[in-house]
Amino acid sequence: VSEPLVSFVGAGPGDPELITLKGLRLLREADVVIHDRLIPHTLLAEAHPGAEIIDVGKSPRQHCLPQVEINRLMVEVARRGRRVVRLKGGDPAVFARLAEEIEAVAAAGLPFEVVPGVTAATAAAALAGISLTERGRASTVVFATGTDHSGRVTTALDWPALARTEGTLVFYMAVHGLETVVSMLVTRGRHPGEPAVVIEHVGAACERVVAAPLGEIADRAREAVVTSPAVLITGPTVAFAQPPWNGRTRRASRGARPSIVGS
Amino acid sequence: VSEPLVSFVGAGPGDPELITLKGLRLLREADVVIHDRLIPHTLLAEAHPGAEIIDVGKSPRQHCLPQVEINRLMVEVARRGRRVVRLKGGDPAVFARLAEEIEAVAAAGLPFEVVPGVTAATAAAALAGISLTERGRASTVVFATGTDHSGRVTTALDWPALARTEGTLVFYMAVHGLETVVSMLVTRGRHPGEPAVVIEHVGAACERVVAAPLGEIADRAREAVVTSPAVLITGPTVAFAQPPWNGRTRRASRGARPSIVGS
Repeated sequence: VSEPLVSFVGAGPGDPELITLKGLRLLREADVVIHDRLIPHTLLAEAHPGAEIIDVGKSPRQHCLPQVEINRLMVEVARRGRRVVRLKGGDPAVFARLAEEIEAVAAAGLPFEVVPGVTAATAAAALAGISLTERGRASTVVFATGTDHSGRVTTALDWPALARTEGTLVFYMAVHGLETVVSMLVTRGRHPGEPAVVIEHVGAACERVVAAPLGEIADRAREAVVTSPAVLITGPTVAFAQPPWNGRTRRASRGARPSIVGS
Repeated sequence: VSEPLVSFVGAGPGDPELITLKGLRLLREADVVIHDRLIPHTLLAEAHPGAEIIDVGKSPRQHCLPQVEINRLMVEVARRGRRVVRLKGGDPAVFARLAEEIEAVAAAGLPFEVVPGVTAATAAAALAGISLTERGRASTVVFATGTDHSGRVTTALDWPALARTEGTLVFYMAVHGLETVVSMLVTRGRHPGEPAVVIEHVGAACERVVAAPLGEIADRAREAVVTSPAVLITGPTVAFAQPPWNGRTRRASRGARPSIVGS
């Protein structure tokens, strides 16, 4: 029985306290940590002093290391018998190119495991006090990407279906294409008055919530100079949001309130 | 600045190591823990010795405490100034009746917060080595429920849209209505040959993966006597699954392999 040599670990969104106990344990045991850009960087201090930390972070306009090189690096390190933690922001199975990396590791015959994490959609919903589903109002929730890995608005999406869907829509990486995403939805019949929020830097100390009707959310986000990463949530349950940030602290543990813009 | 009196905390799926650090901290600080049935019960030992533990768990056929009573209980306890952790399996914002509970707490003017957790869909995907999204093959992932809280198959869903959706479908609470769910999808055009998995008791020691083409998955799950809770994942990326459980241990930490049926 061989132990996994590569552990794909979800670090959760910006807040280092949102990693799982298992993720933290594996991080502490790793010989090599290969991490993306969008992880809470203070987590890296949890690796043991002798561990090698490799940043393969990609920003929308700057690919630090091409995917194929990341794959090669993981395989090379694990082949030497070193325990690799491949640390990804959020959850590894959601918009994190896990399939490609698993394929590379499995093709090399290396034992691996996937440790799930808190994905940005639910962390953003938690911050805004929104339930993504609700009986009779939102029986489904869809996760989609606003932009692809090159920063372009995703054209492959079935926009008419997304516009019609009865439940909640969450767009990851929603900043760059926000106006296009909203316009694709609204011109195909989604109600511009539907409540929406854009949540910037989910989980981080600088997180912000911008709330507005869907038809106005892109303008409000632009005025607020929202930057990546951010998540757009739109749907009937957003109306039911009872923002915990409304006049109250939400994170007594850190002594800071997120900044709120709009609504 | 008042601290939250009610913390809705996602416990993650069955594995107690999949709770977040923040969730565990709040659990340890709570005066009262009000928990659902589907949480890892060993977590309750983390509450401090003086804490009151209240089980309001619902099973499909037995409602221990009606929702309105749960709401009343939370409000009553928090009003006495006691810190409540409302512990839910998975993530609180996904099929966990969070909206109703938030509404009750907010209507009572009580400060609250939501702490996200690992939702069953991504935990199930991790177990099976599946990425829920993939460039060019699955640009969206949809979470839906197979059955509603009374155990009936959800009729409110837009089945034609679900059948057509290009990406990954995940059905929570998928056991009771599995044959109906599959038949709704296949008769509306979803390919019966599409790869699917049913994952039972996600994250728990007794977890199992049943793999088969969508058109056969209900039969395979019935033969394997799959019981609640279980998740169904179907979509093109399931084909790319490189099961970490295939001939290898996935969880060296517990010394146990999940049982695999089919595939």
